[in-house]
Amino acid sequence: MEHEQNFQLLKTLLNEISDINRATSLLGWDQQTYMPPGGAENRGHQLSTLQQIAHSKLISDEMGRLLEELAPFAAQLDPASFEACLIRVARRDYEKATKVPLEWVAEFVMATTIAHEAWAKARQENNFAEFRPHLERLLELAHRYASFFAPYDHVYDPQMDNFEPGLKTKDVQAIFDALRPQQVKLIQQIASRPQVDNSFMFLPYDEQKQWDFGVEVITKMGFDWKRGRQDKTVHPFTTSFGLGDVRITTRVYPNYLAPALFGTLHEAGHAMYEMGSDPQLDRTPLLGGASSGIHESQSRMWENLVGRSYPFWQHFFPRLRGIFPAQLGNLTLDDFYKGINQVKPSFIRVEADEATYNLHIMLRMELEIALMEEKVSVKDLPEAWNSRFEEYLGLTPPNDAQGVLQDVHWSGGMMGYFPSYALGNLIASQLWERIMVDIPNITEQIRAGEFAPWLSWLREKVHRHGSKFEPQDLIQTVTGSKIDPAPYMRYLETKYRQIYDF
Amino acid sequence: MEHEQNFQLLKTLLNEISDINRATSLLGWDQQTYMPPGGAENRGHQLSTLQQIAHSKLISDEMGRLLEELAPFAAQLDPASFEACLIRVARRDYEKATKVPLEWVAEFVMATTIAHEAWAKARQENNFAEFRPHLERLLELAHRYASFFAPYDHVYDPQMDNFEPGLKTKDVQAIFDALRPQQVKLIQQIASRPQVDNSFMFLPYDEQKQWDFGVEVITKMGFDWKRGRQDKTVHPFTTSFGLGDVRITTRVYPNYLAPALFGTLHEAGHAMYEMGSDPQLDRTPLLGGASSGIHESQSRMWENLVGRSYPFWQHFFPRLRGIFPAQLGNLTLDDFYKGINQVKPSFIRVEADEATYNLHIMLRMELEIALMEEKVSVKDLPEAWNSRFEEYLGLTPPNDAQGVLQDVHWSGGMMGYFPSYALGNLIASQLWERIMVDIPNITEQIRAGEFAPWLSWLREKVHRHGSKFEPQDLIQTVTGSKIDPAPYMRYLETKYRQIYDF
Repeated sequence: MEHEQNFQLLKTLLNEISDINRATSLLGWDQQTYMPPGGAENRGHQLSTLQQIAHSKLISDEMGRLLEELAPFAAQLDPASFEACLIRVARRDYEKATKVPLEWVAEFVMATTIAHEAWAKARQENNFAEFRPHLERLLELAHRYASFFAPYDHVYDPQMDNFEPGLKTKDVQAIFDALRPQQVKLIQQIASRPQVDNSFMFLPYDEQKQWDFGVEVITKMGFDWKRGRQDKTVHPFTTSFGLGDVRITTRVYPNYLAPALFGTLHEAGHAMYEMGSDPQLDRTPLLGGASSGIHESQSRMWENLVGRSYPFWQHFFPRLRGIFPAQLGNLTLDDFYKGINQVKPSFIRVEADEATYNLHIMLRMELEIALMEEKVSVKDLPEAWNSRFEEYLGLTPPNDAQGVLQDVHWSGGMMGYFPSYALGNLIASQLWERIMVDIPNITEQIRAGEFAPWLSWLREKVHRHGSKFEPQDLIQTVTGSKIDPAPYMRYLETKYRQIYDF
Repeated sequence: MEHEQNFQLLKTLLNEISDINRATSLLGWDQQTYMPPGGAENRGHQLSTLQQIAHSKLISDEMGRLLEELAPFAAQLDPASFEACLIRVARRDYEKATKVPLEWVAEFVMATTIAHEAWAKARQENNFAEFRPHLERLLELAHRYASFFAPYDHVYDPQMDNFEPGLKTKDVQAIFDALRPQQVKLIQQIASRPQVDNSFMFLPYDEQKQWDFGVEVITKMGFDWKRGRQDKTVHPFTTSFGLGDVRITTRVYPNYLAPALFGTLHEAGHAMYEMGSDPQLDRTPLLGGASSGIHESQSRMWENLVGRSYPFWQHFFPRLRGIFPAQLGNLTLDDFYKGINQVKPSFIRVEADEATYNLHIMLRMELEIALMEEKVSVKDLPEAWNSRFEEYLGLTPPNDAQGVLQDVHWSGGMMGYFPSYALGNLIASQLWERIMVDIPNITEQIRAGEFAPWLSWLREKVHRHGSKFEPQDLIQTVTGSKIDPAPYMRYLETKYRQIYDF
């Protein structure tokens, strides 16, 4: 009886924290979509005030007391029950938040604010020296951050745990060590074949028509417009203000078809995941995705596994060609399919194709780990970047702006995030192999523009659980094994051997 | 020294409350512009959580202690100084908030939520009986609200004070008692004259072109797009998230020119006021308008005194006719000017013209006061409404939906707000007579599309003060007298005698 009461109190407190966090997300969404430039300064104050209030509620004595008193209650619950998961996740968040001193948080916010400006300038001026002291400072802060969580298996673990709860550095290293040589070899094989033509992607395409086609496709796939919307932004993202309001953003280029087309599918994949949680999870920390990697598996599945597949375009290509007859009228489906799947090593991660993308990620993660292990110094980072880049992708970056300085992440102190991008690709393929078993005619369904059974499967197996389970446990339950690179390599091999004919 | 420190602490606390309140406003803006329907339930939770946090900070022991300790400091300051005004307004808000018990607030929120639904249904079904018990409940809550502020001069004072700080019921009654017979007489005189033609207003007008023309006009008038924006909504409003981000909303009808055209001017008038506060007032309760009535004076000045004036359209009519040649090509400036100023008593307040509008307001205020004085019961309200309506406007409402049930305000417990609408018209005319003295060639300037000197005058005399002063004091300082109906009657008489030729 007393436990029931304490659980209700905990839930109410978590509801309030969720309300504040979701309101904060709306402020962030507005900042990146509609806010006039004059609003920036006050928006910073508003975000900071709301974040502080949410944080102080999370680390409050009341939270500590409730979690303490609920521990024996939680121990006797089914570990997969809503109550047990909520208490476990709340305790994890509480312990993480209380372990990190407020002084560190203040220093970190200050350091990243300055570092972000320095990075933007350094990239613009192609001058790594400008960014170097700031990255050194952030690395020092990252070491201190790790120390709050000692003892740990690996100094990189505490960083990565923020994005992939429960996952260990050694596990991820093992996965990527198995994957890397296979991906490098595949790319070399592709490079020895005649290149496919994708010039049709770079013609003028009416922006409104691009937008409308994206809307048409994701509507057909099951994006629920009563519980979501799409707006324009510079750097697309997905955000949620609760189960009934999940928003995607996109950018449309007048002379390049890919960003709007595949970006919309990508973000819709994230959004469908957010929309699919069990209603019971709403207004709690269990709402949404199990990890950044699982989230990325959903977006990549829509964007690549389905969105760049042959049966998908068997259904949609006639329609797209009807909308853009001048640009696509003389193109066959095969030409189009090969063009959108062109593999070509390039310097910039966000422009990378499916086959090379993971190598960009592995390089970054390896460097992050080397920095944390103090095996590489910040001073030597550009050189380490370039030599690895040549080894994996066969290219030497012409300058640091197109090399080590290209990503915003490090300037924001976001170390440990990159692995999730690559893990998402692997998980997507693992899930897909499972789907092909459970829905034997999935290919025919996609060819017919029929996506409901596939979405239902994802809802049932993945979405509804929100973040109740850690990523490895969730994948194990759904596919029968933990995160595994083999299905992804099978997928890449099959697809690109066919496209490049070897 | 200790005072300085306490003042800084007070300011920091007020900054935080302001951040939360402005974030809450953004949630409200989004709710009325872009939020998908599925977001409604969680948005309600988010609004409620943020409001409770702001409220608990306002009534906190720390706030009480700081205000107490700062009282002797405030007493020796220049009463017009930023510090003195901030302490005074904070104390007023604190005292109001602490006088109202939390149980009352909870009951009120619950009652208005239910009442709003009942009202919507009652209006739809044209059935006052449906709404009656809810209005009775809200009236009872209003009486209890007043009791928290006893002793008062008049039972209506505590309600009205929330919108017009410092203004007393007897003062407003005196103003309206002087005004009413003159307005009734003017309308009768107009009614005896041949009607002017406004049929050109009700033709098809391209919506995008209407929008663009509104943007063009308010840009010329000085609306700062770096610190604001305009979006579409069903019930237009203006909202501010700080000095650098003030947003207006509008609605565009495909077959009616007035709402977009004059609505945009109206909201821009509110927005220019919000944008004009001294930067020192940002993130404090002094930012924004002195009262709802002063705010309405700014919107009405733009919409009516200038926006429906002859010199304004000497400048803009050629342009508007150029945009809509099919609709306006055969119209003279005089025809247009008379048409947009047609006077015609009608049932619905929000559609009322300049000459009849105030009578709609006076009727409402008189009924509110009669209800609070228990001279009219809720049961007899429809009859009281209809008999007064006939007396003032010469029409009998055909049903309650077009009569006593038309406004949303009472269902939200917003008693005491209506007077501000009419006071705004009076204050606008008072300010305008002063402007004509201070800027002798203001008419020529408007005719030339030159609005900067007028806006500078408003900034200097009214806007920059934010809510540092109570409305009567502000008006007294700027015009030399308190709120006075005479300038408004002079304005109406002059304008409509010319238009209706008597």
